[in-house]
Amino acid sequence: MSRFFSAKYDKLTPYVPGEQPGEKQYVKLNTNENPFPPSPKAILYAREHVRSPELYSDPEGLELRRALAFLCGVRPEELVLVNGSDEVLNFAFMAFCDADHPALFPDITYGFYPVFCQLSGIPYREIPLKEDFSLDPADYIGQKGTVFIANPNAPTGKLLGTEAIESILKADPDRVVVVDEAYIDFGGVSCIPLIRKYPNLLVTQTFSKSRSMAGARLGFGVGDEALIRDLNTLRYSTNPYNVNSMTLALGLGTVLEESYTQKNCAEIIQVREKTAQALKALGFTMTDSKANFLFVRSDRIPGEELYRKLKERGILVRHFTLPRIADYNRITVGTESQMNTLLEAVKALLEEYK
Amino acid sequence: MSRFFSAKYDKLTPYVPGEQPGEKQYVKLNTNENPFPPSPKAILYAREHVRSPELYSDPEGLELRRALAFLCGVRPEELVLVNGSDEVLNFAFMAFCDADHPALFPDITYGFYPVFCQLSGIPYREIPLKEDFSLDPADYIGQKGTVFIANPNAPTGKLLGTEAIESILKADPDRVVVVDEAYIDFGGVSCIPLIRKYPNLLVTQTFSKSRSMAGARLGFGVGDEALIRDLNTLRYSTNPYNVNSMTLALGLGTVLEESYTQKNCAEIIQVREKTAQALKALGFTMTDSKANFLFVRSDRIPGEELYRKLKERGILVRHFTLPRIADYNRITVGTESQMNTLLEAVKALLEEYK
Repeated sequence: MSRFFSAKYDKLTPYVPGEQPGEKQYVKLNTNENPFPPSPKAILYAREHVRSPELYSDPEGLELRRALAFLCGVRPEELVLVNGSDEVLNFAFMAFCDADHPALFPDITYGFYPVFCQLSGIPYREIPLKEDFSLDPADYIGQKGTVFIANPNAPTGKLLGTEAIESILKADPDRVVVVDEAYIDFGGVSCIPLIRKYPNLLVTQTFSKSRSMAGARLGFGVGDEALIRDLNTLRYSTNPYNVNSMTLALGLGTVLEESYTQKNCAEIIQVREKTAQALKALGFTMTDSKANFLFVRSDRIPGEELYRKLKERGILVRHFTLPRIADYNRITVGTESQMNTLLEAVKALLEEYK
Repeated sequence: MSRFFSAKYDKLTPYVPGEQPGEKQYVKLNTNENPFPPSPKAILYAREHVRSPELYSDPEGLELRRALAFLCGVRPEELVLVNGSDEVLNFAFMAFCDADHPALFPDITYGFYPVFCQLSGIPYREIPLKEDFSLDPADYIGQKGTVFIANPNAPTGKLLGTEAIESILKADPDRVVVVDEAYIDFGGVSCIPLIRKYPNLLVTQTFSKSRSMAGARLGFGVGDEALIRDLNTLRYSTNPYNVNSMTLALGLGTVLEESYTQKNCAEIIQVREKTAQALKALGFTMTDSKANFLFVRSDRIPGEELYRKLKERGILVRHFTLPRIADYNRITVGTESQMNTLLEAVKALLEEYK
């Protein structure tokens, strides 16, 4: 850091995104991207309806917000659009946490949560998941603080039922519970219908995974109007034009063709289950993932080594160094053909470790 | 605000962006957009070279960063790409200001500066411009704090010479001086060549004005590698994929056709000067603007009234309620035809106020 950098960031360790392949061509299964592009219809729609780039994007994103709110069964006032769901998560940590309202989240979860806390000087407590990586709602009941739950969780893929989340919401109506549903479309049940029942519930979602728009940067938050107003206060104090016009148009095209998203998700779920069976047959253990990735462990090959050997063979997966999960790798579910390439590579590797 | 909103934002008043026309068609001269679209060549290039939207954008933005750094005469390590220059300004307030390093900026300047300070709990002091809205560098010398200077200034359009800025940079090498050059391409001289001489200099620019990309959201910061590293620490702790792929591609197309940008700027400067003469002939007084807007006052029509009457006639300009400038309006320089429409409307109005 420079000698000018404020001392308040002395303990800030930035998030490390999944590695980007350089010149070499990889089978890229490390950042949970969708293997399918947005539909040609959505792209064409976006091209035809995009606002001219020399004009500012609509800071209200009204057209997309209306269509997306309709899809979610909420009112536009209950929804905020952001530049990728990391942005709404950052706003939520800023808005609903402070010295008196520490953040609470699992020890194994999306690695950005502690970074957001460090960034804003927010105290936080990481609550250990059970041995099998399941979350016990009781651990969050009777604890003071704003709760952040990724559901399905990352990188485990484990899904928490709606009832479990409701028990946390009900236990303390005076604190906000944020449910980060980045992966919900791959087999989970969204909490969005609960926002009217629980004014302390904020649900965040992204277009990066199920909607094939990781590179376009679009996320959203859904909750009680008052919560959304708070997030908008921060948005208008940071970057009112946070979502660009091209993304607003592509997002709208995508929402208008929801069946395409559903079809892709069904295909990914099917490939996930098939790949899971194949890996189990090869002796892997894994969590019951309801996301577009598998979280797997081999008895024969240590986690870091599997990551490295697969990379040598042109396949990128994600390995985390946290002690509890160092034996695991997170593998994005790609196309059936990509998964076959992965399985062949894994089989060849296992031969080496006999 | 909701009852959950952190008390730390009690005094936060969000920025109010220029109004967006609804259904009614306006001649839009209120947000300093470029009247010309990006060049067809740049748009075609972007379409052909954009990364597939289902893949994350390159968090390093390397291809664009290399080309833009070349254009600026700096190294890629001396440049950071952001989601509109508001983002790099916010990062600069966060990085280089705190309780021990208050922010210093003019009383009349870009209205977002105090908002960024309120957002991050940074103390700030607004230093009055002279009667004629000029900035006296002496006012910033011997004052402790991080300096923010918009050059040309907004909404006055007044340009500060490089020597004046150097005198502020030299006076205290232990503090950062941020020069916000959003409007520099309309007649100013950039401070970018000074970054090697002054490790405490950060220059910010945007693609929103001279490069016709307001809706695409692209800005950048240039400075000593150590300063840029600090800003990247914040970027990677906020939103590593802050700039989307479509914007990276369009930005690159635009940089590769710099002559088109230059031609449009020359045209806008010419129209600005012509419009200024015409308004002066109608009895308006104004600052000597080197931006893509004019900052004008009529002896006959109060500022707020002129704004309102023009709006009734289908022309949007920007009026600020700050006492010192309440008599003024900021009028974006559009096409010659748009300016003629403005002048006709002004003439008709003046008839009413005889």
